[in-house]
Order: sequence, then C-alpha cells, then structure tokens
Amino acid sequence: MRVLGIDPGLTITGFGCVEGDAVRPAIVEAGVIRLTKGKTRPSVAERLVELDLEIRGVIESCEPDVVALEGMFANPKHPATVITMAHGRGVIMLAAQSMGVELVELKPAEVKKGMTGSGRATKEQIQTSVQHLFGLSELPTPADLADAIAIGVCGLRRGEVGARIVV
Amino acid sequence: MRVLGIDPGLTITGFGCVEGDAVRPAIVEAGVIRLTKGKTRPSVAERLVELDLEIRGVIESCEPDVVALEGMFANPKHPATVITMAHGRGVIMLAAQSMGVELVELKPAEVKKGMTGSGRATKEQIQTSVQHLFGLSELPTPADLADAIAIGVCGLRRGEVGARIVV
Repeated sequence: MRVLGIDPGLTITGFGCVEGDAVRPAIVEAGVIRLTKGKTRPSVAERLVELDLEIRGVIESCEPDVVALEGMFANPKHPATVITMAHGRGVIMLAAQSMGVELVELKPAEVKKGMTGSGRATKEQIQTSVQHLFGLSELPTPADLADAIAIGVCGLRRGEVGARIVV
Repeated sequence: MRVLGIDPGLTITGFGCVEGDAVRPAIVEAGVIRLTKGKTRPSVAERLVELDLEIRGVIESCEPDVVALEGMFANPKHPATVITMAHGRGVIMLAAQSMGVELVELKPAEVKKGMTGSGRATKEQIQTSVQHLFGLSELPTPADLADAIAIGVCGLRRGEVGARIVV
C-alpha cells in the first residue's frame, strides 16, 4: 500500500509518499511545493492554479493508493490562515478525487500521537520522530515536509487496520 | 461589462451573471448549483468535483469579464461552515483563474450596502432589493441566488469606477 500525505498551505505545501508496512515504511518521494516563488507575490488564485498543477504532477509521479490529509479545525488565533489553507485543501481534494484516488482524513492529534506517542507533540518532535523512523542523516526540514511524511505514515497505519474515514 | 457573482457553499452555490451599467443592469443568467442531490449524501471531495464541473459550465455559458466573490472572514459561531465554504471557494477561484477570467473580491458589507443602502442588511432585504432592481415578479429564492446576483451587481459598480482588488 502506498499513501501520499499532504500538509496544505498557500505558502508551502508539504507532501510525503510512503509505502510498505507502518512499522518499517519506506519513503517513495517527498518534498515541498513553494507557491510564492519569483519576485512578484502571486495572487491567491494564481497560487491555486500552481498548486493544482504541482499536486497533480505529484499524484501522477507517486501513484498513491490513498491521499491522506489532516482534518481542519478553526483556529481563532489565525482565522485568515485557516481560510487560505482551506482554499488549498479544497483544490487538493478536487485533484485527488478527480484522479480517482481515495481520500482519507486523519485527526491532527492522531497524527501527532501516531508519530511521537504524544497527541500534543511539537513540530520539532514530529521532525525528530520522522528522522529516526526512516534513519535520515539530517532533520527533515521544513516542518511542513516532516508533517506530510507523518500524515502519510499514519495513513498507512489506518489502511492496515482497514478503517477508513473518507472526507 | 459582464460580471458573474458567486456565493459559494457545499450545499448550495448561487450564481448571478449581470451586465450593462450598474444603475440599470440586466441579468444574463442566474441560478443555483445544488451539491447534495441524490439519495446518498456525497462526500466533500465528490461535491468539489461536481462544483468544479458545474461552475466551469456556468463560466463557459455566461462568458463573464470578471468573476466576483465576497471576501471571507472567520465566523467563530460556524467554524466548520467557514472551512467547507473555503474549500468550495478555492475550487471556484481555481476554475476562474485557469479559464483566464479575472477575479474580484468584494467586502460583504460593501455588497450589502451597495444593494440596500445598509451594510447590515438582512438576507430578506437583499432579496427584496434584487427583486426591485430587476423588476422581478417574485422574490428571488433561495437567498443564495439573491446574494450571488447582488455580488454581481456590486462587481459591476466596482468595474465602472475602475477600482479592483484582485484576490
């Protein structure tokens, strides 16, 4: 089984495609899509077009069985971030669904706990856990990359127990 | 000038395409896209695919110069609605931008004030104002339809004064 974890954002979107069993998974491909490249600051609409193009490329290249995303919740401290992130998340869901790839939604605390043992793990703890699990020589950065890989790993576990929550 | 106003939602998305001058505009086409048709409740991802398909059809049919949307703000009373609406809004922005149609963002209070004279108008007052402006024999329903037409009319006004805020 192959799961593509995605951590959406309109500045950086992280992705991490993993496969195998959840105890000893392997990374197929992982990286970040940066949407604010270039000298001029692209509009939100321009970024969505770029994100759509890039994420379809990643799905084509990785050929995942499942795309895993974290569930979103409103963060009263960063309302604007929630809205722009949801714009990008909608575009990613559209891409996956229209390409015939199943979508799975994981709770943020489930990903943190699955990866580190604690539902309240920090971003740094996620990065360290990802580094150890895959025996990486360096800490995976930025945090969006490590988060996406963690989402992929937890999606793999979810797939193994056969429980699916389709978004 | 022809402006397509859209009021996004994952249950109902209203659209209203208007043209001419803002004092005596004409409705080119208006309607609603219902995303929860059928006996089974479609998933969010399925609705986004349907919305993408439908909204591209509307843009092709209406051939607007501009797509107008209201700016979003976080509503602490309905956080989940804000997130699903933003998913749909992202898909609509992607469709317009990738079809080469300019996007304009209007403030919700600007639309209410432009349509009724009051920035705090109720949905019913928007419906009544739309009915009067276009001399419609019946109240435009549902409210999402009237809202979309109002957004289109205010987009037309914005276009006339030449001021644009591209989202």
